[in-house]
Amino acid sequence: MNFSSKNIEAAVNAFAALPGIGKKTALRLVLHLVDQEKEVTEQFTSAIASMRQEIKHCRRCYNLSDTDLCSICQDKRRDEKVICVVESIRDVMAIENTDQYRGLYHVLGGVISPIEGIGPEQLNIDALMDRIKKEEISEVIMAISPTIEGDTTIYYLSKQLEAKGVKISTIARGVSFGGELEYADGLTLGRSILARTPYSNQAK
Amino acid sequence: MNFSSKNIEAAVNAFAALPGIGKKTALRLVLHLVDQEKEVTEQFTSAIASMRQEIKHCRRCYNLSDTDLCSICQDKRRDEKVICVVESIRDVMAIENTDQYRGLYHVLGGVISPIEGIGPEQLNIDALMDRIKKEEISEVIMAISPTIEGDTTIYYLSKQLEAKGVKISTIARGVSFGGELEYADGLTLGRSILARTPYSNQAK
Repeated sequence: MNFSSKNIEAAVNAFAALPGIGKKTALRLVLHLVDQEKEVTEQFTSAIASMRQEIKHCRRCYNLSDTDLCSICQDKRRDEKVICVVESIRDVMAIENTDQYRGLYHVLGGVISPIEGIGPEQLNIDALMDRIKKEEISEVIMAISPTIEGDTTIYYLSKQLEAKGVKISTIARGVSFGGELEYADGLTLGRSILARTPYSNQAK
Repeated sequence: MNFSSKNIEAAVNAFAALPGIGKKTALRLVLHLVDQEKEVTEQFTSAIASMRQEIKHCRRCYNLSDTDLCSICQDKRRDEKVICVVESIRDVMAIENTDQYRGLYHVLGGVISPIEGIGPEQLNIDALMDRIKKEEISEVIMAISPTIEGDTTIYYLSKQLEAKGVKISTIARGVSFGGELEYADGLTLGRSILARTPYSNQAK
């Protein structure tokens, strides 16, 4: 692309460096900002800049947080005896959005993946073991993607946790609610038959 | 969406305020920046912020420019007798990318559109007439999208220019009718500048 302005070129390249944004989209965004008052761009950049300056990882659960201890860890109404172990901050958000969970979290920062060179030492596993030791944890819920890497990570964690006397559970796996059975993949459907649960009218 | 951090929420809303970016994409971009070193975000925001601070409209042709006079107007090798009239800066970029045009530009800032309440006085038409009067212009090329509004604008301009003794041409209608100029492919757009035809009110 041919820019008559170095400033525009630099801004387009800045946007295009973000994932999933190409040069054309970047140019559209830049020209949009040029069309608006200067304050719009100031608000935009200062929101991004101060977010990055001030955001930190919660020292307990590694969730993103504005403070040393994240708002979930600070919330006294939550059940401090249950930890839900997740791969990433996105998963915390996804679970929080369901409004179904009132315990705490622990963000691993990924899953064990030999192919990508991620071993247990790259993840926040030591910190998790530390919490199990220091906090009065009764249950650890593994809310980790049901992939090969995810299952490996669950297996590794369960081995580490075995001797600690905490209950270990994984989130239920099966066909999704509202989904047509015929479109469920074979593996999920097969497993969901093997792992069938007793029927009760209360179950949802 | 449920954010445990006000900073993240503010940054997501900032991205989501841009055209074509939804909350989910915005979150992805924010988490991408969080994953990178702080310098990455600093470079990103400073490129955008300084672009918006320093960008101005060329005082002659209204192209975006880092300086009072844009790099195209400053370029002594260009043919200063020919002005290519375009709707927007995107069109300048599109035409420059064809490498087929060596004259100057004049950016109208839109087209006449009664429905959107844009009349000739909202566009940079007075400045164009001023240039025709002061500069030695021999030809004005209308490189305006072949839409109803575009044709109206061309007609209006041709009426204004009739008495000035300049040749008026439109880019060849190789570009498809009803299409937006910025999306025309480079070859078609380049050819259409080379094959420009004298303007007549009957031409369609």
